[in-house]
Amino acid sequence: MVILYSGGLDSTVLLYEYKDKIKLALSFDYKSKHNDREYEYAKKNTSLLNIEHIRIPLYFINDFFNSSLLKSGGEIPEGHYQDSTMKSTVVPFRNGIMLSVACGIAESRGLGTVLIANHSGDHAIYPDCRSEFIDYMSNAMTSGTYNKVKIFAPYTLLNKRDIALIGKKLNVDFNLTYSCYKGNEIHCGKCGTCIERKEALLGFDNTIYEN
Amino acid sequence: MVILYSGGLDSTVLLYEYKDKIKLALSFDYKSKHNDREYEYAKKNTSLLNIEHIRIPLYFINDFFNSSLLKSGGEIPEGHYQDSTMKSTVVPFRNGIMLSVACGIAESRGLGTVLIANHSGDHAIYPDCRSEFIDYMSNAMTSGTYNKVKIFAPYTLLNKRDIALIGKKLNVDFNLTYSCYKGNEIHCGKCGTCIERKEALLGFDNTIYEN
Repeated sequence: MVILYSGGLDSTVLLYEYKDKIKLALSFDYKSKHNDREYEYAKKNTSLLNIEHIRIPLYFINDFFNSSLLKSGGEIPEGHYQDSTMKSTVVPFRNGIMLSVACGIAESRGLGTVLIANHSGDHAIYPDCRSEFIDYMSNAMTSGTYNKVKIFAPYTLLNKRDIALIGKKLNVDFNLTYSCYKGNEIHCGKCGTCIERKEALLGFDNTIYEN
Repeated sequence: MVILYSGGLDSTVLLYEYKDKIKLALSFDYKSKHNDREYEYAKKNTSLLNIEHIRIPLYFINDFFNSSLLKSGGEIPEGHYQDSTMKSTVVPFRNGIMLSVACGIAESRGLGTVLIANHSGDHAIYPDCRSEFIDYMSNAMTSGTYNKVKIFAPYTLLNKRDIALIGKKLNVDFNLTYSCYKGNEIHCGKCGTCIERKEALLGFDNTIYEN
Protein backbone atom coordinates (compact mmCIF):
# COMPACT_ATOMS: atom_id res chain seq x y z
CA MET A 1 0.00 0.00 0.00
CA VAL A 2 0.96 3.61 -0.70
CA ILE A 3 -0.42 6.25 1.69
CA LEU A 4 -1.04 9.96 1.03
CA TYR A 5 0.54 11.26 4.20
CA SER A 6 0.49 14.91 5.26
CA GLY A 7 1.51 14.69 8.92
CA GLY A 8 -1.92 15.93 10.05
CA LEU A 9 -4.11 14.15 12.58
CA ASP A 10 -6.21 12.11 10.13
CA SER A 11 -3.48 10.69 7.93
CA THR A 12 -1.24 10.02 10.95
CA VAL A 13 -3.93 7.87 12.57
CA LEU A 14 -4.36 6.09 9.21
CA LEU A 15 -0.59 5.57 9.00
CA TYR A 16 -0.54 3.93 12.43
CA GLU A 17 -3.67 1.86 11.78
CA TYR A 18 -2.24 0.30 8.59
CA LYS A 19 1.49 0.54 9.37
CA ASP A 20 2.12 -3.16 8.77
CA LYS A 21 0.73 -3.03 5.21
CA ILE A 22 2.16 0.34 4.13
CA LYS A 23 5.25 0.14 1.90
CA LEU A 24 5.53 3.82 1.00
CA ALA A 25 4.35 7.17 2.38
CA LEU A 26 3.99 10.13 0.01
CA SER A 27 3.98 13.75 1.14
CA PHE A 28 3.36 16.57 -1.33
CA ASP A 29 4.87 20.03 -1.33
CA TYR A 30 2.51 22.36 -3.17
CA LYS A 31 3.72 25.37 -1.17
CA SER A 32 0.77 25.68 1.12
CA LYS A 33 1.48 27.88 4.11
CA HIS A 34 1.70 24.80 6.34
CA ASN A 35 3.33 22.18 4.06
CA ASP A 36 6.83 22.49 5.52
CA ARG A 37 5.60 22.38 9.11
CA GLU A 38 3.37 19.35 8.41
CA TYR A 39 6.29 17.59 6.75
CA GLU A 40 8.50 18.00 9.86
CA TYR A 41 5.86 16.10 11.81
CA ALA A 42 5.24 13.57 9.05
CA LYS A 43 8.93 12.65 8.95
CA LYS A 44 8.97 11.98 12.71
CA ASN A 45 6.23 9.35 12.35
CA THR A 46 7.56 7.56 9.27
CA SER A 47 11.02 7.45 10.90
CA LEU A 48 9.57 5.98 14.09
CA LEU A 49 7.70 3.35 12.06
CA ASN A 50 10.59 2.79 9.63
CA ILE A 51 8.39 3.39 6.55
CA GLU A 52 9.91 4.67 3.28
CA HIS A 53 8.82 8.27 2.78
CA ILE A 54 9.07 10.43 -0.36
CA ARG A 55 8.19 14.11 -0.71
CA ILE A 56 6.87 15.10 -4.16
CA PRO A 57 7.18 18.74 -5.27
CA LEU A 58 4.03 20.11 -6.95
CA TYR A 59 5.07 23.76 -7.10
CA PHE A 60 2.89 24.45 -10.15
CA ILE A 61 -0.10 24.41 -7.78
CA ASN A 62 1.25 27.48 -5.99
CA ASP A 63 2.06 29.10 -9.35
CA PHE A 64 -1.21 28.51 -11.19
CA PHE A 65 -3.97 27.65 -8.71
CA ASN A 66 -6.14 29.96 -6.59
CA SER A 67 -6.41 29.21 -2.86
CA SER A 68 -5.82 31.06 0.40
CA LEU A 69 -4.09 27.89 1.63
CA LEU A 70 -1.17 28.62 -0.74
CA LYS A 71 1.77 30.95 -0.17
CA SER A 72 0.59 32.76 -3.33
CA GLY A 73 -2.93 33.15 -1.87
CA GLY A 74 -4.56 35.60 0.55
CA GLU A 75 -5.09 35.40 4.33
CA ILE A 76 -6.34 32.16 5.92
CA PRO A 77 -9.85 32.87 7.27
CA GLU A 78 -10.70 32.30 10.94
CA GLY A 79 -13.85 30.52 12.11
CA HIS A 80 -15.44 27.11 11.91
CA TYR A 81 -14.36 24.68 9.20
CA GLN A 82 -17.88 24.35 7.78
CA ASP A 83 -18.28 28.13 7.37
CA SER A 84 -18.49 29.41 3.82
CA THR A 85 -15.44 31.61 4.49
CA MET A 86 -13.34 28.43 4.68
CA LYS A 87 -14.14 27.76 1.02
CA SER A 88 -11.19 29.99 0.10
CA THR A 89 -8.87 27.29 1.52
CA VAL A 90 -9.95 24.73 -1.11
CA VAL A 91 -7.06 23.80 -3.42
CA PRO A 92 -8.89 22.82 -6.62
CA PHE A 93 -8.85 19.03 -7.24
CA ARG A 94 -5.91 18.54 -4.87
CA ASN A 95 -6.98 15.01 -3.92
CA GLY A 96 -7.42 14.11 -7.60
CA ILE A 97 -3.87 15.26 -8.33
CA MET A 98 -2.29 13.56 -5.30
CA LEU A 99 -4.19 10.30 -5.91
CA SER A 100 -3.14 10.31 -9.59
CA VAL A 101 0.52 10.78 -8.72
CA ALA A 102 0.30 8.06 -6.05
CA CYS A 103 -1.42 5.79 -8.60
CA GLY A 104 1.46 6.24 -11.06
CA ILE A 105 4.06 5.48 -8.39
CA ALA A 106 2.06 2.47 -7.15
CA GLU A 107 1.88 1.14 -10.74
CA SER A 108 5.64 1.73 -11.18
CA ARG A 109 6.38 -0.32 -8.05
CA GLY A 110 3.81 -3.09 -8.49
CA LEU A 111 1.69 -1.91 -5.54
CA GLY A 112 -2.08 -2.18 -5.77
CA THR A 113 -3.67 0.18 -3.23
CA VAL A 114 -3.54 3.89 -2.42
CA LEU A 115 -4.66 4.88 1.10
CA ILE A 116 -6.23 8.28 1.80
CA ALA A 117 -7.65 9.71 5.06
CA ASN A 118 -10.52 11.83 3.70
CA HIS A 119 -13.44 11.96 6.16
CA SER A 120 -17.03 13.18 6.41
CA GLY A 121 -16.11 16.49 8.08
CA ASP A 122 -14.34 17.52 4.86
CA HIS A 123 -17.32 16.79 2.62
CA ALA A 124 -19.13 20.09 3.02
CA ILE A 125 -16.57 22.35 1.39
CA TYR A 126 -14.17 19.90 -0.31
CA PRO A 127 -15.91 18.14 -3.23
CA ASP A 128 -12.88 15.90 -3.80
CA CYS A 129 -13.30 14.32 -0.34
CA ARG A 130 -16.80 12.92 -0.93
CA SER A 131 -17.47 9.22 -1.44
CA GLU A 132 -18.85 9.79 -4.95
CA PHE A 133 -15.52 11.32 -6.01
CA ILE A 134 -13.51 8.58 -4.29
CA ASP A 135 -15.52 5.86 -6.06
CA TYR A 136 -15.14 7.37 -9.55
CA MET A 137 -11.46 8.10 -8.98
CA SER A 138 -10.78 4.57 -7.77
CA ASN A 139 -12.49 3.20 -10.89
CA ALA A 140 -10.46 5.58 -13.08
CA MET A 141 -7.25 4.31 -11.45
CA THR A 142 -8.27 0.66 -11.78
CA SER A 143 -9.20 1.03 -15.45
CA GLY A 144 -6.12 3.17 -16.19
CA THR A 145 -3.45 0.79 -14.86
CA TYR A 146 -2.14 -2.70 -15.59
CA ASN A 147 -1.92 -3.40 -11.87
CA LYS A 148 -5.59 -2.43 -11.29
CA VAL A 149 -4.64 0.09 -8.61
CA LYS A 150 -7.52 1.03 -6.29
CA ILE A 151 -8.23 3.53 -3.52
CA PHE A 152 -8.80 2.49 0.07
CA ALA A 153 -10.45 5.32 2.02
CA PRO A 154 -11.68 3.75 5.27
CA TYR A 155 -12.51 7.06 7.01
CA THR A 156 -14.83 8.41 4.27
CA LEU A 157 -17.95 7.99 6.43
CA LEU A 158 -16.30 8.75 9.80
CA ASN A 159 -15.86 12.20 11.34
CA LYS A 160 -12.69 13.63 12.85
CA ARG A 161 -13.78 12.72 16.38
CA ASP A 162 -14.15 9.08 15.30
CA ILE A 163 -10.64 9.22 13.83
CA ALA A 164 -9.21 10.76 17.00
CA LEU A 165 -10.80 7.96 19.05
CA ILE A 166 -9.20 5.33 16.77
CA GLY A 167 -5.88 7.14 17.26
CA LYS A 168 -6.31 7.19 21.04
CA LYS A 169 -6.98 3.43 21.03
CA LEU A 170 -3.80 2.92 18.97
CA ASN A 171 -1.82 5.16 21.37
CA VAL A 172 -0.94 7.64 18.63
CA ASP A 173 1.00 10.58 20.08
CA PHE A 174 -1.11 13.49 18.81
CA ASN A 175 1.69 15.90 19.65
CA LEU A 176 3.52 14.35 16.69
CA THR A 177 0.76 15.65 14.38
CA TYR A 178 0.25 19.16 13.04
CA SER A 179 -2.99 20.75 11.84
CA CYS A 180 -2.87 24.57 11.65
CA TYR A 181 -3.36 26.12 8.20
CA LYS A 182 -1.22 29.11 9.16
CA GLY A 183 1.91 27.00 9.46
CA ASN A 184 3.44 28.74 12.51
CA GLU A 185 5.36 26.79 15.14
CA ILE A 186 2.44 27.02 17.58
CA HIS A 187 -1.10 26.04 16.44
CA CYS A 188 -3.12 29.29 16.06
CA GLY A 189 -6.25 27.79 17.62
CA LYS A 190 -8.54 29.96 15.49
CA CYS A 191 -8.50 28.67 11.90
CA GLY A 192 -11.03 26.05 10.80
CA THR A 193 -8.67 23.14 11.11
CA CYS A 194 -7.48 24.18 14.61
CA ILE A 195 -11.10 24.46 15.79
CA GLU A 196 -11.84 21.05 14.27
CA ARG A 197 -8.73 19.61 15.97
CA LYS A 198 -9.85 20.92 19.37
CA GLU A 199 -13.30 19.37 18.94
CA ALA A 200 -11.83 16.03 17.81
CA LEU A 201 -9.35 15.77 20.68
CA LEU A 202 -11.74 17.07 23.37
CA GLY A 203 -10.83 15.50 26.72
CA PHE A 204 -7.33 14.38 25.69
CA ASP A 205 -5.89 17.39 23.87
CA ASN A 206 -2.30 18.26 24.87
CA THR A 207 -1.77 20.65 21.92
CA ILE A 208 -0.43 24.07 22.81
CA TYR A 209 -2.59 26.73 21.09
CA GLU A 210 -1.87 30.42 20.69
CA ASN A 211 -5.53 31.09 21.53
CA MET B 1 -11.74 24.87 -22.68
CA VAL B 2 -8.28 23.74 -21.53
CA ILE B 3 -6.37 21.41 -23.86
CA LEU B 4 -3.65 18.89 -22.99
CA TYR B 5 -1.25 19.82 -25.75
CA SER B 6 2.00 17.98 -26.48
CA GLY B 7 2.86 19.27 -29.96
CA GLY B 8 2.37 15.82 -31.49
CA LEU B 9 0.15 15.11 -34.47
CA ASP B 10 -3.03 14.18 -32.56
CA SER B 11 -3.19 17.05 -30.08
CA THR B 12 -2.17 19.56 -32.78
CA VAL B 13 -5.11 18.53 -34.96
CA LEU B 14 -7.36 18.80 -31.88
CA LEU B 15 -5.92 22.27 -31.15
CA TYR B 16 -6.77 23.46 -34.65
CA GLU B 17 -10.20 21.82 -34.66
CA TYR B 18 -11.30 23.57 -31.44
CA LYS B 19 -9.09 26.67 -31.61
CA ASP B 20 -12.01 29.08 -31.23
CA LYS B 21 -13.14 27.54 -27.92
CA ILE B 22 -9.72 26.89 -26.37
CA LYS B 23 -8.67 29.42 -23.70
CA LEU B 24 -5.54 27.67 -22.48
CA ALA B 25 -3.08 25.04 -23.74
CA LEU B 26 -1.11 22.98 -21.20
CA SER B 27 2.13 21.18 -22.00
CA PHE B 28 3.84 18.98 -19.43
CA ASP B 29 7.54 18.47 -18.89
CA TYR B 30 8.04 15.09 -17.24
CA LYS B 31 11.53 14.72 -18.75
CA SER B 32 10.63 12.26 -21.44
CA LYS B 33 13.33 11.94 -24.08
CA HIS B 34 11.17 13.94 -26.51
CA ASN B 35 9.42 16.50 -24.25
CA ASP B 36 11.68 19.44 -25.11
CA ARG B 37 11.51 18.77 -28.85
CA GLU B 38 7.71 18.40 -28.79
CA TYR B 39 7.44 21.64 -26.85
CA GLU B 40 9.38 23.58 -29.51
CA TYR B 41 6.72 22.50 -32.03
CA ALA B 42 3.84 23.05 -29.62
CA LYS B 43 4.91 26.67 -29.02
CA LYS B 44 4.94 27.36 -32.75
CA ASN B 45 1.28 26.38 -33.08
CA THR B 46 -0.06 28.17 -29.99
CA SER B 47 1.86 31.30 -31.07
CA LEU B 48 0.35 31.11 -34.55
CA LEU B 49 -3.14 30.72 -33.06
CA ASN B 50 -2.52 33.24 -30.27
CA ILE B 51 -3.60 30.81 -27.54
CA GLU B 52 -2.25 31.14 -23.98
CA HIS B 53 0.19 28.29 -23.34
CA ILE B 54 1.67 27.11 -20.04
CA ARG B 55 4.28 24.43 -19.51
CA ILE B 56 3.94 22.51 -16.24
CA PRO B 57 7.00 20.77 -14.77
CA LEU B 58 6.33 17.24 -13.48
CA TYR B 59 9.92 16.20 -12.86
CA PHE B 60 8.94 13.75 -10.13
CA ILE B 61 7.77 11.42 -12.93
CA ASN B 62 11.32 11.11 -14.21
CA ASP B 63 12.60 10.67 -10.64
CA PHE B 64 10.17 8.05 -9.39
CA PHE B 65 8.40 6.35 -12.34
CA ASN B 66 9.60 3.49 -14.55
CA SER B 67 9.38 3.98 -18.32
CA SER B 68 11.76 3.79 -21.29
CA LEU B 69 10.13 7.03 -22.49
CA LEU B 70 11.87 8.90 -19.66
CA LYS B 71 15.42 10.22 -19.56
CA SER B 72 15.87 8.01 -16.47
CA GLY B 73 14.64 4.95 -18.42
CA GLY B 74 16.26 2.49 -20.83
CA GLU B 75 16.39 2.45 -24.65
CA ILE B 76 13.27 3.23 -26.70
CA PRO B 77 12.30 -0.01 -28.49
CA GLU B 78 11.96 -0.10 -32.29
CA GLY B 79 9.03 -1.72 -34.08
CA HIS B 80 5.28 -1.32 -34.39
CA TYR B 81 3.36 0.62 -31.77
CA GLN B 82 1.08 -2.30 -30.95
CA ASP B 83 4.01 -4.66 -30.28
CA SER B 84 4.45 -5.81 -26.71
CA THR B 85 7.98 -4.32 -26.71
CA MET B 86 6.39 -0.85 -26.85
CA LYS B 87 4.85 -1.51 -23.44
CA SER B 88 8.09 -0.25 -21.90
CA THR B 89 7.20 3.26 -23.16
CA VAL B 90 4.08 3.46 -20.97
CA VAL B 91 4.39 6.20 -18.33
CA PRO B 92 2.15 4.88 -15.57
CA PHE B 93 -1.13 6.81 -15.27
CA ARG B 94 0.28 9.77 -17.20
CA ASN B 95 -3.10 10.80 -18.59
CA GLY B 96 -4.66 10.58 -15.12
CA ILE B 97 -2.00 12.92 -13.76
CA MET B 98 -2.19 15.42 -16.65
CA LEU B 99 -6.00 15.45 -16.61
CA SER B 100 -6.02 16.01 -12.83
CA VAL B 101 -3.65 18.96 -13.08
CA ALA B 102 -5.67 20.41 -15.98
CA CYS B 103 -8.84 19.92 -13.94
CA GLY B 104 -7.40 21.91 -11.02
CA ILE B 105 -6.31 24.74 -13.32
CA ALA B 106 -9.69 24.73 -15.11
CA GLU B 107 -11.45 24.96 -11.74
CA SER B 108 -9.12 27.80 -10.67
CA ARG B 109 -10.01 29.75 -13.81
CA GLY B 110 -13.72 28.99 -14.00
CA LEU B 111 -13.34 26.82 -17.13
CA GLY B 112 -15.53 23.75 -17.51
CA THR B 113 -13.93 21.38 -20.04
CA VAL B 114 -10.60 19.62 -20.50
CA LEU B 115 -9.78 18.47 -24.05
CA ILE B 116 -7.58 15.43 -24.69
CA ALA B 117 -6.58 13.75 -27.99
CA ASN B 118 -6.43 10.09 -26.91
CA HIS B 119 -7.42 7.77 -29.76
CA SER B 120 -8.16 4.11 -30.43
CA GLY B 121 -4.64 3.32 -31.65
CA ASP B 122 -3.36 3.99 -28.14
CA HIS B 123 -5.83 1.67 -26.46
CA ALA B 124 -3.89 -1.55 -26.86
CA ILE B 125 -0.92 -0.71 -24.66
CA TYR B 126 -2.03 2.46 -22.81
CA PRO B 127 -4.85 1.64 -20.37
CA ASP B 128 -5.32 5.33 -19.53
CA CYS B 129 -6.34 6.09 -23.14
CA ARG B 130 -9.39 3.81 -23.23
CA SER B 131 -12.94 5.12 -23.13
CA GLU B 132 -13.70 3.35 -19.85
CA PHE B 133 -10.88 5.28 -18.16
CA ILE B 134 -11.93 8.56 -19.78
CA ASP B 135 -15.52 8.12 -18.57
CA TYR B 136 -14.57 7.36 -14.96
CA MET B 137 -12.01 10.15 -14.90
CA SER B 138 -14.50 12.66 -16.29
CA ASN B 139 -16.98 11.66 -13.59
CA ALA B 140 -14.28 11.96 -10.92
CA MET B 141 -13.48 15.49 -12.15
CA THR B 142 -17.15 16.49 -12.30
CA SER B 143 -17.86 15.19 -8.79
CA GLY B 144 -14.61 16.62 -7.40
CA THR B 145 -15.06 20.27 -8.52
CA TYR B 146 -17.50 23.13 -7.91
CA ASN B 147 -17.41 24.00 -11.59
CA LYS B 148 -18.35 20.43 -12.62
CA VAL B 149 -15.32 20.15 -14.91
CA LYS B 150 -15.62 17.41 -17.53
CA ILE B 151 -13.43 15.74 -20.16
CA PHE B 152 -14.06 16.11 -23.90
CA ALA B 153 -12.19 13.41 -25.81
CA PRO B 154 -13.65 13.48 -29.33
CA TYR B 155 -10.99 11.18 -30.88
CA THR B 156 -11.43 8.28 -28.43
CA LEU B 157 -13.03 6.03 -31.06
CA LEU B 158 -11.03 7.33 -34.06
CA ASN B 159 -7.65 6.05 -35.20
CA LYS B 160 -4.58 8.12 -36.08
CA ARG B 161 -5.39 7.97 -39.81
CA ASP B 162 -8.85 9.47 -39.11
CA ILE B 163 -7.17 12.25 -37.11
CA ALA B 164 -4.64 12.94 -39.88
CA LEU B 165 -7.50 13.24 -42.38
CA ILE B 166 -9.28 15.77 -40.13
CA GLY B 167 -6.00 17.69 -39.93
CA LYS B 168 -5.60 17.61 -43.71
CA LYS B 169 -9.11 19.01 -44.13
CA LEU B 170 -8.25 21.79 -41.66
CA ASN B 171 -4.97 22.52 -43.53
CA VAL B 172 -2.85 21.71 -40.49
CA ASP B 173 0.85 21.97 -41.35
CA PHE B 174 2.06 18.55 -40.19
CA ASN B 175 5.65 19.73 -40.38
CA LEU B 176 4.80 21.83 -37.32
CA THR B 177 4.14 18.62 -35.36
CA TYR B 178 6.68 16.25 -33.81
CA SER B 179 6.19 12.57 -33.00
CA CYS B 180 9.46 10.66 -32.48
CA TYR B 181 10.00 9.14 -29.01
CA LYS B 182 13.78 9.46 -29.38
CA GLY B 183 13.63 13.25 -29.35
CA ASN B 184 16.33 13.89 -31.98
CA GLU B 185 16.04 16.76 -34.43
CA ILE B 186 15.15 14.37 -37.28
CA HIS B 187 12.36 11.80 -36.78
CA CYS B 188 14.03 8.36 -36.42
CA GLY B 189 11.40 6.62 -38.59
CA LYS B 190 11.77 3.36 -36.66
CA CYS B 191 10.14 3.76 -33.23
CA GLY B 192 6.48 2.89 -32.76
CA THR B 193 5.24 6.43 -32.95
CA CYS B 194 7.25 7.20 -36.12
CA ILE B 195 5.85 4.09 -37.80
CA GLU B 196 2.34 5.10 -36.74
CA ARG B 197 2.95 8.64 -38.05
CA LYS B 198 4.03 7.30 -41.45
CA GLU B 199 0.90 5.15 -41.67
CA ALA B 200 -1.37 8.02 -40.64
CA LEU B 201 0.11 10.53 -43.10
CA LEU B 202 0.40 8.04 -46.01
CA GLY B 203 0.04 9.92 -49.29
CA PHE B 204 0.72 13.39 -47.86
CA ASP B 205 3.73 12.89 -45.57
CA ASN B 206 6.42 15.56 -45.91
CA THR B 207 8.26 14.51 -42.76
CA ILE B 208 12.00 13.93 -43.13
CA TYR B 209 12.90 10.60 -41.53
CA GLU B 210 16.33 9.22 -40.71
CA ASN B 211 15.16 5.86 -42.05
